[in-house]
Amino acid sequence: MSELEKTKRTAITRLPKRGSYDADTIHKILDEALFCTLAYSRGETAFQIPTGFIRVGEKLYIHGSVGSFYMRELVSSKPVVSIGVMLVDGLVLARSAFHHSVNYRSVVLFGQPELVTDEAELYAVLEQFTEKICPGRWADIRKPNKGEWKATMVLSFDINEASAKIRIGAPKDDEEDYDLDIWAGVIPTSFEMKTPVPDPALKEGVKLPDYLKDVGKL
Amino acid sequence: MSELEKTKRTAITRLPKRGSYDADTIHKILDEALFCTLAYSRGETAFQIPTGFIRVGEKLYIHGSVGSFYMRELVSSKPVVSIGVMLVDGLVLARSAFHHSVNYRSVVLFGQPELVTDEAELYAVLEQFTEKICPGRWADIRKPNKGEWKATMVLSFDINEASAKIRIGAPKDDEEDYDLDIWAGVIPTSFEMKTPVPDPALKEGVKLPDYLKDVGKL
Repeated sequence: MSELEKTKRTAITRLPKRGSYDADTIHKILDEALFCTLAYSRGETAFQIPTGFIRVGEKLYIHGSVGSFYMRELVSSKPVVSIGVMLVDGLVLARSAFHHSVNYRSVVLFGQPELVTDEAELYAVLEQFTEKICPGRWADIRKPNKGEWKATMVLSFDINEASAKIRIGAPKDDEEDYDLDIWAGVIPTSFEMKTPVPDPALKEGVKLPDYLKDVGKL
Repeated sequence: MSELEKTKRTAITRLPKRGSYDADTIHKILDEALFCTLAYSRGETAFQIPTGFIRVGEKLYIHGSVGSFYMRELVSSKPVVSIGVMLVDGLVLARSAFHHSVNYRSVVLFGQPELVTDEAELYAVLEQFTEKICPGRWADIRKPNKGEWKATMVLSFDINEASAKIRIGAPKDDEEDYDLDIWAGVIPTSFEMKTPVPDPALKEGVKLPDYLKDVGKL
């Protein structure tokens, strides 16, 4: 368990008890989430992009096309970006309207993009992008050719200025409301994968691979 | 069907065929999503907050505590913010690593916050916040008292500078790859609600209300 340094940007000011700067806690949330939102300032306006990402050690990686306007902008102006992730675990139904809430695990980190130029690092990252979304997939598919590698840009961000914010558990109502005849509790929520649907253009005779057989099973 | 004006900020430059400026399309995505990410610039850094929201007509509303640092900052400096929403509908498994993709429906809008001061508008918005997450709930619960209304801030944003971006359907592989013996298709994904779990402190004899009985049922 190692704590990241709390900075002015990452300090949780609202409901600070929900905050955490523990690296393991932050890493676990990043590893479970498939998508993040990357925001950066262009002049006085903040732009944001939803995108996939992976974590490897103390680094977070995103990838995109070399033709993408924002990827090129990130490389050329190296702005400090914020990257946010939220896992929604439940809708919290309190007895009072006011105490309705959400169970969530979120992370925000700040950092500057670094263009990944080392080929081994680049290849490893793209393999893990595929494996994060679908473990077992990389060994099965047609690997990128030279042109495809060249068309893909990978950026890394150090995970050293980050915080997590977490709410778990039952509703918290005002003391006098616990005696009301109102149902209270939590609707658990999750991001679910269902049974894979084959491409209508799938070549005849190609079977669902083993690593996909349990996806979507209850 | 009415089209929003495309602006420099909302024009989709990467894969423009996936873009839409149709108000109905944008509204439907906003109405299905429970959470958005709000980003704004503070100096050269972009901050972002995940938060709940509702749409009413041509306006998007967020709410928060009057004690929230960012809510106060939004009211006092009225920055142009970007608000992003993403619904993830599927993981797209192509035959080639390169063409792996995601099915999604996303919206980004730009606008300046307006503090809602009209009491009727404020009350209606907070009612609909509860109803969006759990239809039927508002009639059942303890309504906000004076102090709670005072502690809650509601901000509105015009939905007039916005675009949607959508990917649907099967993988698109390179022509020559369709003959490979590789499974391809889509893993459908969705945000799911499960069977409600009662608060351990629930008053004896209080039953699950009718409007929650089908939540989480297959």
